[in-house]
Amino acid sequence: MEPIIRTVSLSPALPTPTDKRADRERLLDSLSDMIGAFHPDIGIDFLRELPSLLRNNNFSISATLGYEGNKARILSLKADEAYAVAVDIGTTNIAASLFDMNTGEKLDYGEIENPQMSEGADVLTRMHAAMGGKGAKLHRLLVEGVNKVIENLCAAHSLHPSAVSGAVFAGNTIMIHFLLDFPVHNIPVEPYIPVAHNIGFISPCDIGLRMNPQGSVYVFPNAGSYVGGDIIAGIISSGLYTEEQPCLLIDVGTNAEIVVGCRDWLMVGAGAAGPALEGGISAIGMRAVDGAISGVTIDRRTHEVTFRTIGNSEPIGICGSGMIELVAELYAAGMLDEKGGFVTPCAAAGRLVEDGAGRGFVLVDSPEKRLVLRDTDINNFMRSKAAMFASLQVMVSSVGIAFSELEKVFVGGAFGSGIDAEKAASIGMIPGWGKQRIHPTGNSSLRGAEMLLMDRKLLLTIDHICGMITYRELNTDGEFMRQFPAALFIPHTNQEVLKG
Amino acid sequence: MEPIIRTVSLSPALPTPTDKRADRERLLDSLSDMIGAFHPDIGIDFLRELPSLLRNNNFSISATLGYEGNKARILSLKADEAYAVAVDIGTTNIAASLFDMNTGEKLDYGEIENPQMSEGADVLTRMHAAMGGKGAKLHRLLVEGVNKVIENLCAAHSLHPSAVSGAVFAGNTIMIHFLLDFPVHNIPVEPYIPVAHNIGFISPCDIGLRMNPQGSVYVFPNAGSYVGGDIIAGIISSGLYTEEQPCLLIDVGTNAEIVVGCRDWLMVGAGAAGPALEGGISAIGMRAVDGAISGVTIDRRTHEVTFRTIGNSEPIGICGSGMIELVAELYAAGMLDEKGGFVTPCAAAGRLVEDGAGRGFVLVDSPEKRLVLRDTDINNFMRSKAAMFASLQVMVSSVGIAFSELEKVFVGGAFGSGIDAEKAASIGMIPGWGKQRIHPTGNSSLRGAEMLLMDRKLLLTIDHICGMITYRELNTDGEFMRQFPAALFIPHTNQEVLKG
Repeated sequence: MEPIIRTVSLSPALPTPTDKRADRERLLDSLSDMIGAFHPDIGIDFLRELPSLLRNNNFSISATLGYEGNKARILSLKADEAYAVAVDIGTTNIAASLFDMNTGEKLDYGEIENPQMSEGADVLTRMHAAMGGKGAKLHRLLVEGVNKVIENLCAAHSLHPSAVSGAVFAGNTIMIHFLLDFPVHNIPVEPYIPVAHNIGFISPCDIGLRMNPQGSVYVFPNAGSYVGGDIIAGIISSGLYTEEQPCLLIDVGTNAEIVVGCRDWLMVGAGAAGPALEGGISAIGMRAVDGAISGVTIDRRTHEVTFRTIGNSEPIGICGSGMIELVAELYAAGMLDEKGGFVTPCAAAGRLVEDGAGRGFVLVDSPEKRLVLRDTDINNFMRSKAAMFASLQVMVSSVGIAFSELEKVFVGGAFGSGIDAEKAASIGMIPGWGKQRIHPTGNSSLRGAEMLLMDRKLLLTIDHICGMITYRELNTDGEFMRQFPAALFIPHTNQEVLKG
Repeated sequence: MEPIIRTVSLSPALPTPTDKRADRERLLDSLSDMIGAFHPDIGIDFLRELPSLLRNNNFSISATLGYEGNKARILSLKADEAYAVAVDIGTTNIAASLFDMNTGEKLDYGEIENPQMSEGADVLTRMHAAMGGKGAKLHRLLVEGVNKVIENLCAAHSLHPSAVSGAVFAGNTIMIHFLLDFPVHNIPVEPYIPVAHNIGFISPCDIGLRMNPQGSVYVFPNAGSYVGGDIIAGIISSGLYTEEQPCLLIDVGTNAEIVVGCRDWLMVGAGAAGPALEGGISAIGMRAVDGAISGVTIDRRTHEVTFRTIGNSEPIGICGSGMIELVAELYAAGMLDEKGGFVTPCAAAGRLVEDGAGRGFVLVDSPEKRLVLRDTDINNFMRSKAAMFASLQVMVSSVGIAFSELEKVFVGGAFGSGIDAEKAASIGMIPGWGKQRIHPTGNSSLRGAEMLLMDRKLLLTIDHICGMITYRELNTDGEFMRQFPAALFIPHTNQEVLKG
């Protein structure tokens, strides 16, 4: 185990008339002896306390050490403990986990909604708000959110946030810009230039984090405005970069992000898939939380609709995986045509409504709740699923391989957590890869950050990965534009291409 | 010329659809191309401004670069100019010079009295004050003094102190501890352990310096509590460390500091010589400023006394070099015996007084001023000159060579500036080296700091020198104790040892 921070016990030799080394060099020499070739740094504030600290403890003290790439640095001289957090900054949620760095134990997990939601649900709205003068506010909101998550995690374990001496952040390029209070002005305009790719380690004070102010904060680098640190972290945690044969990593949140590659090459593509699977697609859409319909079955004969909800609660909306199943079941039961239009059996089942808002399928109709899937909702969904499939086609064909040649398909994020791969394939959203090749990865970005906390050698891997990545813009790709219309049908105009 | 900071003009390529590097990496790449293998750092504050700075200037900007050992760092992105100061922190004076780092020109020199004088004239008094709770005050006084010197230098050249992006400090170990706000508690007690030897580069904000807050501040390392950075700087500026044959460097201020060595080895000795030559030795003693008697001649026959003063002003006291000449002339004219006692010719010349304060020699007796050299003053001087000579004996003999084998003798500080080497030798203060072997070095500590400003390769030399130095405590040396009494005579009980 080579964690990014850890506590070491030091007992430098006592000064004598023949060993007159200064306190600083005495301490650092004993530290160097212990950790090998690294020559650690120590800040001036620690030096001011060091003489009395050493002499009050008979020259036996604990030091928390941070490994920051080529150098090591003392982060604390007072505690035997060392804690750190891994944080994934999502557009919608901030997720974090707390680690005891000396045992390697993951103590807890927590998440809260990204407080920037008050300024807009999607990245584009927030970028525009920032460009209109709200950049400082968005930074402040985000940092307060991060501080809140850390505070919650610490409170649950009776720790003061100052006990946290390490933090690793992953997030998309825009969220990380907000975190660092970087201007986002040039990200949405050609040629989409971020302020920085790889800032490495920063001080908690640089961004107002409430933790040990001398602590070590690492920010995953991006490989461009649309290839964020969350993707790099996902490549790390999936292990894609170690595979011999080409594999795929899909992470669909607000954007569809696709990585195809292996240990020899990596190509990343991204496009605004629309908030297809994060609840934003329809009036009745919602995130995958309590009360969300997450699975649907429709009897092929009676057209009776049964569903399950998260937490077995009363239904209050439908989440991404529920939406995929609903469309797949409606199509399989003959209630939806290949263009996504409601057809006769819907009416026969007494579930079709038509009013000023257009046609709709009544999914829930109880005294407490009425949920109607509108044809505009279906249309939005069709565009999302078409974008998804066309993106996969472009990415995979651009490297000259077929879907069937992909050994593993890692599926992360909201999309991966609850999806029924066969139903998604049945409507042509993904190829027919079959369950055994699909590996749900959960929050692969957070997992990557967690892995780095416990294995600092990954820093080199990250640099290596960033250097390997080539990027393919999908939304403006001519091939994407050609493939997209054909994917606007269920399952596809050409079922040959669906082979997994 | 490889200065420690400099300004470079950068014109990174404009972003294009095929060159999407982030602003940070774009800037640093162009900087790396310019300066070679160094990969420079850039702080987060600069990154926040970088996008608009680049675009408002069509990607042509100036960067001030600081070279900090193994790394380079951007210190400013806004100015074409780069200024730096070299500062020698003496117990009595703070001396500084201002450089234009782009031309290498030394623009000005300034000095002020060390404001810590209000807390005690000597280092020991101030250390005790610090240990009694006045450490923070002593730190503040010193930093305010440094800020004042920098401010004065800047004001004379219509510069704001924020235009100063670099600073190099040299001073004795205790002064540097005060500068850094380090506790001095362990310096005066066995085994004399400083807080740090080599802290290298720090931030101006670490100690409250008023200059570019992103600037680079280097502090000369010490090689122990009694081998300060001022000595290291003196070794640098004298060039002692490059000599093939053994040479000597003497710097006598409050302490007598002696370096003997060459390019292969260096031995430093230090002892409290007493403030023999900085004005503190007698009631009529003063620093070498306007009105100080700096040279004395006594007619061997008539015993008429003539003297010269600094600035040709009315005499108000006597400085170190004047004192040496006065004693040498008194002895040569037969007015002082070998033990330093006033003898008959003094009385015959009508210059001997005897009163409640003992005997005295009337040096000046005009209506405006009466200056009397007391026998207690002579005794103090005799002890200082004996300590000086015994120290030289111990240092040189301990490395197994004779005074005559020393190729060059560098003489720095107040002692070196005005001294008549032959007269000093005539009373046995130094061996009879002759003028051609004595090289006055002026403020060798400040000069060393100035040289580093303009030649960063000296950083390696400094580390090398620190590694070579062995230290010899003189005051507690048994050999010193044996030699000291014999040197309490004019010129010496054994004139053989005076051979230079």
